[in-house]
Amino acid sequence: MQFLNKKAPPLEVSDWLNTKMPLTLSKLKGQVVVIHAFQMLCPGCVMYGTQQAKTIYESFNAKGVEVLGLHTVFEHHDVMDKKALKVFIHEFKIPFPVAIDRPSSSGLTPKTMAKYQLRGTPSMLIIDKVGNLVLNHFGQISDMQVGAILGQLLEKK
Amino acid sequence: MQFLNKKAPPLEVSDWLNTKMPLTLSKLKGQVVVIHAFQMLCPGCVMYGTQQAKTIYESFNAKGVEVLGLHTVFEHHDVMDKKALKVFIHEFKIPFPVAIDRPSSSGLTPKTMAKYQLRGTPSMLIIDKVGNLVLNHFGQISDMQVGAILGQLLEKK
Amino acid sequence: MQFLNKKAPPLEVSDWLNTKMPLTLSKLKGQVVVIHAFQMLCPGCVMYGTQQAKTIYESFNAKGVEVLGLHTVFEHHDVMDKKALKVFIHEFKIPFPVAIDRPSSSGLTPKTMAKYQLRGTPSMLIIDKVGNLVLNHFGQISDMQVGAILGQLLEKK
Amino acid sequence: MQFLNKKAPPLEVSDWLNTKMPLTLSKLKGQVVVIHAFQMLCPGCVMYGTQQAKTIYESFNAKGVEVLGLHTVFEHHDVMDKKALKVFIHEFKIPFPVAIDRPSSSGLTPKTMAKYQLRGTPSMLIIDKVGNLVLNHFGQISDMQVGAILGQLLEKK
Repeated sequence: MQFLNKKAPPLEVSDWLNTKMPLTLSKLKGQVVVIHAFQMLCPGCVMYGTQQAKTIYESFNAKGVEVLGLHTVFEHHDVMDKKALKVFIHEFKIPFPVAIDRPSSSGLTPKTMAKYQLRGTPSMLIIDKVGNLVLNHFGQISDMQVGAILGQLLEKK
Repeated sequence: MQFLNKKAPPLEVSDWLNTKMPLTLSKLKGQVVVIHAFQMLCPGCVMYGTQQAKTIYESFNAKGVEVLGLHTVFEHHDVMDKKALKVFIHEFKIPFPVAIDRPSSSGLTPKTMAKYQLRGTPSMLIIDKVGNLVLNHFGQISDMQVGAILGQLLEKK
Repeated sequence: MQFLNKKAPPLEVSDWLNTKMPLTLSKLKGQVVVIHAFQMLCPGCVMYGTQQAKTIYESFNAKGVEVLGLHTVFEHHDVMDKKALKVFIHEFKIPFPVAIDRPSSSGLTPKTMAKYQLRGTPSMLIIDKVGNLVLNHFGQISDMQVGAILGQLLEKK
Repeated sequence: MQFLNKKAPPLEVSDWLNTKMPLTLSKLKGQVVVIHAFQMLCPGCVMYGTQQAKTIYESFNAKGVEVLGLHTVFEHHDVMDKKALKVFIHEFKIPFPVAIDRPSSSGLTPKTMAKYQLRGTPSMLIIDKVGNLVLNHFGQISDMQVGAILGQLLEKK
């Protein structure tokens, strides 16, 4: 786990789903932001990461935590396109906004993924109320640890 | 759970993946056959059904149980096509052959699904050594119950 | 796991709890017998073994499987006596008869435990309809495997 | 769940185990205190509560959280005495100090249990750095929620 504690760079998003209007990190300032970076056909995502993100949403959305999905497709792009993702969001009953990471012109890794140096999916990013990146975690992370980080960030002035 | 105990009708398959050659139930006579009917974007499938089918394969394949996947798409056909299914099989490391249920000309439910009157996905079908359908179960079923049925059918003359 | 396939020796029991009358393996002939050897203060027992034994009881008792507990105390005898065991049976809602393994005159290991060469607790013993010991397993065993053994033994003539 | 936010009353303890010296809440001021109130023969305790308390200890003890066990026996006192509890602490590898709730002269409920109006076991008490009772929870509570409370209290000035 990398604790970075520096300014979270803007998300590069080609499209937003499951939200009435596009979001930006700067618009979300004042809130704690949890980003669930995933691919819809990644087993670790669908078996625990996405469920955990839903639990975070249910437990903390009313308390000042914004949860966002970030679909960071770095392989098999043709079968994980926007149309497929819409079905995934519907079938898995995703309750939070989902951003599609902007494809890079050259190469497989999309832009936000590259900028945040994500190591794969699922990854969890946590950004504090003033916009600093506090957590950049690849793979599984315990509910207790996630709870502790969010409890701390919500309390922080 | 419906115990039918009558002849399992032939599978209607448009394509086979993850196997060198097409299979038929009649070719498999003498073995117990477990069919995991699923859709690659069905949460109940990816979160437990498919994992259970893999466990059955690992535990019983060497003992006379053939495990087959049956991709019975009855909704969102365009994003669960053969190309997408191939990625799913690869990413989820499915070790057993997967049949694609033959689409019906009129309507959404594919042919094998209709013939077996499956109620949805995941469904588990178990066929005994002489070709009779012994179990047609929709939804979750305990590992202990699956084990008991397989132990019994393997022992049966 | 040791498959022994020879005559299961008689249980050496100092007391029976949770049953109207004492049992013997010979009285149970014609049924499959599962023995859950445990100690009431053994973590692996209370966290999974005893629960699994209860599940076996619920799933198979009506189908010809007798489940027995065997309290095989080999350490801390004074705090796992009959009085304490009665409370354990009550609090953990054990639905099956529980035998107290007969203490040996010299040494810590009780008599049935020694005779069956149990390696510790929890251990699972499975005895077939004609009285042969089929399984003598120390530690965790999967529900699917237990189911398979029971399904097979119930089917066997 | 009751949030009380008033001064946590002193613990009434007849004995301390698993610690070199007796503890008091006033000695622990400046730290967040988690009290796992349990009975050694309570299924809900041994199956999840005690495990969760161990996880809290492992995750937060180095960060300013003191975890204490409180053995609040209100039934079957004779088989859950100090000698039996010592075996339990040893067998279940409890890493934190355990207090024995002082028996009341008249009645079954011990003194701390009565004072804190605990509804049963397991119960979790959380006390903040200045000694206020923040949580008094009976039964299961999610890891994420526990983490959030601890993260918040650790951050609080």
